[in-house]
Amino acid sequence: MSISGPPAETAERQAYYDKISKRNLNPLWSVMSAIITREPRSACVPHLWAFAEMKELLLEAGSLITAKEAERRVLMLENPGMPGQNRITTSLYAGLQLVLPGEVAPAHRHSQSAVRFVLDGAGAHTSVDGERTIMEVGDFVITPPRAWHDHGNHSDRPMIWLDGLDIPTVSFYDASFAESYPDDEQPVTRPVGHSLARFGANMLPVDYEAAQPSSPIFNYPYARTREALEAMRRQQEWDPCHGLKMRFVNPVDGGSPMPTMSAFMQLLPKDFATSAYRSTDATIFAVVEGHGTTTIDGQPFAWGPKDVFVAPSWKWVTHHAGEDAVIFSYSDRIAQQKLGLWREDRGNRVKE
Amino acid sequence: MSISGPPAETAERQAYYDKISKRNLNPLWSVMSAIITREPRSACVPHLWAFAEMKELLLEAGSLITAKEAERRVLMLENPGMPGQNRITTSLYAGLQLVLPGEVAPAHRHSQSAVRFVLDGAGAHTSVDGERTIMEVGDFVITPPRAWHDHGNHSDRPMIWLDGLDIPTVSFYDASFAESYPDDEQPVTRPVGHSLARFGANMLPVDYEAAQPSSPIFNYPYARTREALEAMRRQQEWDPCHGLKMRFVNPVDGGSPMPTMSAFMQLLPKDFATSAYRSTDATIFAVVEGHGTTTIDGQPFAWGPKDVFVAPSWKWVTHHAGEDAVIFSYSDRIAQQKLGLWREDRGNRVKE
Amino acid sequence: MSISGPPAETAERQAYYDKISKRNLNPLWSVMSAIITREPRSACVPHLWAFAEMKELLLEAGSLITAKEAERRVLMLENPGMPGQNRITTSLYAGLQLVLPGEVAPAHRHSQSAVRFVLDGAGAHTSVDGERTIMEVGDFVITPPRAWHDHGNHSDRPMIWLDGLDIPTVSFYDASFAESYPDDEQPVTRPVGHSLARFGANMLPVDYEAAQPSSPIFNYPYARTREALEAMRRQQEWDPCHGLKMRFVNPVDGGSPMPTMSAFMQLLPKDFATSAYRSTDATIFAVVEGHGTTTIDGQPFAWGPKDVFVAPSWKWVTHHAGEDAVIFSYSDRIAQQKLGLWREDRGNRVKE
Amino acid sequence: MSISGPPAETAERQAYYDKISKRNLNPLWSVMSAIITREPRSACVPHLWAFAEMKELLLEAGSLITAKEAERRVLMLENPGMPGQNRITTSLYAGLQLVLPGEVAPAHRHSQSAVRFVLDGAGAHTSVDGERTIMEVGDFVITPPRAWHDHGNHSDRPMIWLDGLDIPTVSFYDASFAESYPDDEQPVTRPVGHSLARFGANMLPVDYEAAQPSSPIFNYPYARTREALEAMRRQQEWDPCHGLKMRFVNPVDGGSPMPTMSAFMQLLPKDFATSAYRSTDATIFAVVEGHGTTTIDGQPFAWGPKDVFVAPSWKWVTHHAGEDAVIFSYSDRIAQQKLGLWREDRGNRVKE
Repeated sequence: MSISGPPAETAERQAYYDKISKRNLNPLWSVMSAIITREPRSACVPHLWAFAEMKELLLEAGSLITAKEAERRVLMLENPGMPGQNRITTSLYAGLQLVLPGEVAPAHRHSQSAVRFVLDGAGAHTSVDGERTIMEVGDFVITPPRAWHDHGNHSDRPMIWLDGLDIPTVSFYDASFAESYPDDEQPVTRPVGHSLARFGANMLPVDYEAAQPSSPIFNYPYARTREALEAMRRQQEWDPCHGLKMRFVNPVDGGSPMPTMSAFMQLLPKDFATSAYRSTDATIFAVVEGHGTTTIDGQPFAWGPKDVFVAPSWKWVTHHAGEDAVIFSYSDRIAQQKLGLWREDRGNRVKE
Repeated sequence: MSISGPPAETAERQAYYDKISKRNLNPLWSVMSAIITREPRSACVPHLWAFAEMKELLLEAGSLITAKEAERRVLMLENPGMPGQNRITTSLYAGLQLVLPGEVAPAHRHSQSAVRFVLDGAGAHTSVDGERTIMEVGDFVITPPRAWHDHGNHSDRPMIWLDGLDIPTVSFYDASFAESYPDDEQPVTRPVGHSLARFGANMLPVDYEAAQPSSPIFNYPYARTREALEAMRRQQEWDPCHGLKMRFVNPVDGGSPMPTMSAFMQLLPKDFATSAYRSTDATIFAVVEGHGTTTIDGQPFAWGPKDVFVAPSWKWVTHHAGEDAVIFSYSDRIAQQKLGLWREDRGNRVKE
Repeated sequence: MSISGPPAETAERQAYYDKISKRNLNPLWSVMSAIITREPRSACVPHLWAFAEMKELLLEAGSLITAKEAERRVLMLENPGMPGQNRITTSLYAGLQLVLPGEVAPAHRHSQSAVRFVLDGAGAHTSVDGERTIMEVGDFVITPPRAWHDHGNHSDRPMIWLDGLDIPTVSFYDASFAESYPDDEQPVTRPVGHSLARFGANMLPVDYEAAQPSSPIFNYPYARTREALEAMRRQQEWDPCHGLKMRFVNPVDGGSPMPTMSAFMQLLPKDFATSAYRSTDATIFAVVEGHGTTTIDGQPFAWGPKDVFVAPSWKWVTHHAGEDAVIFSYSDRIAQQKLGLWREDRGNRVKE
Repeated sequence: MSISGPPAETAERQAYYDKISKRNLNPLWSVMSAIITREPRSACVPHLWAFAEMKELLLEAGSLITAKEAERRVLMLENPGMPGQNRITTSLYAGLQLVLPGEVAPAHRHSQSAVRFVLDGAGAHTSVDGERTIMEVGDFVITPPRAWHDHGNHSDRPMIWLDGLDIPTVSFYDASFAESYPDDEQPVTRPVGHSLARFGANMLPVDYEAAQPSSPIFNYPYARTREALEAMRRQQEWDPCHGLKMRFVNPVDGGSPMPTMSAFMQLLPKDFATSAYRSTDATIFAVVEGHGTTTIDGQPFAWGPKDVFVAPSWKWVTHHAGEDAVIFSYSDRIAQQKLGLWREDRGNRVKE
């Protein structure tokens, strides 16, 4: 690339640019070094949202608007480097959703994929294509693209979860379709836990054919996830950059639970400090257990349970856990891998 | 989706929004119907760039700046609905590149994939990873991601081609890497035509393993493409929406030649009028032979050889050929398919 | 095909055949209808081995030879239609293995894949590549191709399991490699249950890459399998031909646990009678729970727990369960599917 | 494995064996070292069939029986180590087919895949699913599983080709289905060359979906193959074990043209001597051009144009070309690869 940036501009050239811009033409050479960059260089910045403050603001929203009127009572976490753009990274959206006791977030469906990561409360539910799941803290719940879904809360406490969607991705590809369900709630036709029992035991119905490129399991319960991490811990399978880190999997093909987003859970034991790591998938983290500090691009962020923070593409990240910590995360890694774009740097070597 | 748009805003709500926006939080409900749309709804509009005018402007650029100073002497075709954004659709870039006799467009490489579709002139060359190909009108040439490439013109005429790149896609995923080659031209280590002969005959070297997710053939010559279309014509395999339409293929896996873009060639016989068609992949067309008219979203565009036009996502498209016509096109279809987003509508049925 | 069989043979033709056979040539036309048959037509016949009798004979073997001297103290179940051929179907082998308290079946490895289905006893173990699993009745245990494995019994009871191997397949392809381990037992380097915890929770280690085309889980415990079947039962997802039937899955790719064999578990409720079914994969069944009758090619076989029976390719099969029954089975279905050969007939339709 | 072979047999043991054999049980330990072998160890032996002699015998068959009466007038090449088994390797069949001027080999279809490699004559044809191809020496023609096919000869010369089928494979899996067409010849509905033009130009019809796991191209003409080999030769891409060797490819997925067999063409320049090589896929070779010698398991076979020879699994093979030579070959490599069984040894390293 033209490292030194664009060629010198002269009056003659400028006159030419003015003339052609009326023809919907512009010179590549004036912008090439800005759009084909030597390294990732978006406006995305690191940031942390402290849960205590967000919960207070969410509860205030609870008195301003109902879940039904809002359709989804969600506060979007906007990246401070990209204000007004409804996104937390260049390709992904994050929000905090509140459902109060007795409320319903009405049924709809859309092209966008959604991750739900439960932060606070217990006992609310999400229904997906006729099946309801009860949500507990640490559960990883998905609502796949084009699946009817609604949320409700029959418990006596407010429930708050992190919503992770690919809204910017679907907008970018100009491929958004959405539809409301005629009623607030879709009918429930299968018992709670059915999908997990049917698809989660490393068996598949003998003639099962996936209708969608997404996981038929839509709640990966935290108890099971935690147990898997402990098993790895017993075996001391530490990765210097990640501690113990696993990705959630679609049991039908071993791929990502949804076609545009990857999701992960990692365990960092007390006093573990990771080696520097960077990758092209900007990542949103949500803390489940423990306190610690993550340093992103030289900037330290102290975190505790339920806090949410974001690391941009290709910025160095290190974690330090002050006590045993478990962190959930999601990113567009799977999309970048499919498109041949994903790259990581573990400090000493680049893997593409 | 909340079809009627956002809930009513009150002074109290507005005060709340002002307060939370300082915390990098914003209410989803105010924007939901705008970002999760019932149908695709970008700013992208249909447009046609007439070749005669563009050639004149390009030649004028030829006297303003050298290929070497510009690195690439390209006029970007900017979608009139998205001015200043260096893109022709939401996800793709298009430009017209001019290389004058004796010039070199210096060697570099980058994460971005590039399609080169030859419009005018004959005999210039592109070198990719040590092999040179001579470019003729109608040839479909690729420079895969991270492959060293340079262009030159040893002929006595200016050469103009259409550049199609995934620059907006790579920016969107914040995954751009680029590098200049130490010299203007990379050394040539293989004879002209080597890759096509080695990989184009429906055979592969016995132990071949692809190092990259892109085609090892980097010039699909027009003569061959034209002959394949004529064979289909003899068999009368007309598609009501497309005439005779084929996609270019990576011989290693039958997939797309590059991981983010699909490319096509179609033949419309004299007086053929296609049925209405729309799909979520906004498409850039470049005419090779013939005259005709394409109607996009109700707006007719008359075209002749070398003209370039764009159809946005999900707008109805019909073609009418006044004489035998051949049209090249490219889009992000393969990316959307990998991400589970692509959808088409052939008038009577939707296929996902 | 020449349905009426071979052409008439004349003395002249016979003389010719005699002459050419010395040249290692033979006329196709004399055998064509016998080797390219209108339907599957092997010598394989249906048969049932009653467990009570087999256990008695196995225990007698226990006093004739030690596991160590035998290397594997196994009685092969030979198909009565193919005596002396060490196989139960054309492509697969079955045997019953006995390990007495205190015994070790020494460590070795080979190209052959092995299914172990536990019929009787409790608490013996299999070690695979450094990890030991404790085996209980109904557990489905695998020893993948080329994995070091040994068996032992630290319990106070004899243990008997069904061995299912692809020995005829590997012989057919002439691709057998085998090796003894220097010691009777390989060292154990991971805790019991490690692989299941690490790979069985619908998560995979973030950078996991499978070294082999086989499942990293090597014990699919019966308790979990049984629970999955009960979940399906609650949802009444009956298949007329199979009752409730699931296939065991490699969590890495959703495919078969091993590259040459498929394995299944099915539940038939009391009084359920299946519709007629046939497929090209001859299948070995082993009863876990319940009594019932299976009719194969018109021949009824009454079965109870631990009995083993075989159904040949393309013979009609119906099951009737006298009480709630659970049946394990394995076949070469996955191999036939990869080779484009598998076909089934559900009475009214053929699916290929 | 028990390398020293089976344990000692005693009278007591023998009595036990006799008793259990009536129960369709046999001791594994008596045969284990014979069926789970340390290395491949089939009865298959190397052998060469000289074309001149075979042609004479074939022409004699031409006067004994018509193509119509024989349905296929083919002399099977039987491996001398496996007489009366209708196979040339453990898994594959080879035969030489003669079609005289004016004859028709009637239309049928079957589960078996067939390779046709043209040795002698010119201008006969094969029809596959409504399309006819004219066959010339060196052409690689396929008739995919379950595709209607018939052969005819409108030329004035006898035509002879090598048939390579997976008959033993389909028998082994007990999955043979076959059917006669009501007429001798199926109707021709597409022009000669249609499939190659439509599918052979590194393009596919835009919405093409393969109905079968086999190549839609059914004649890979020698002229094109030869040219590809010459291109590789110019680039000096020699493999020490193979000279220049390519595999035929299904353009739809880059895989094998048929699901059970791989096919190859290799060029050995004058005086080229290959390094020792062995692999688990026993291979049938047919010479197109040139003279040379191949040494298999220490045994030299001198060959010239149209000769056919076979190399068993895991026997060392070296070629020496006395003049520029081109050799076609086919084997079950693709099947073994799908089943995880294939292995090769290039003298210094084993690749699995």
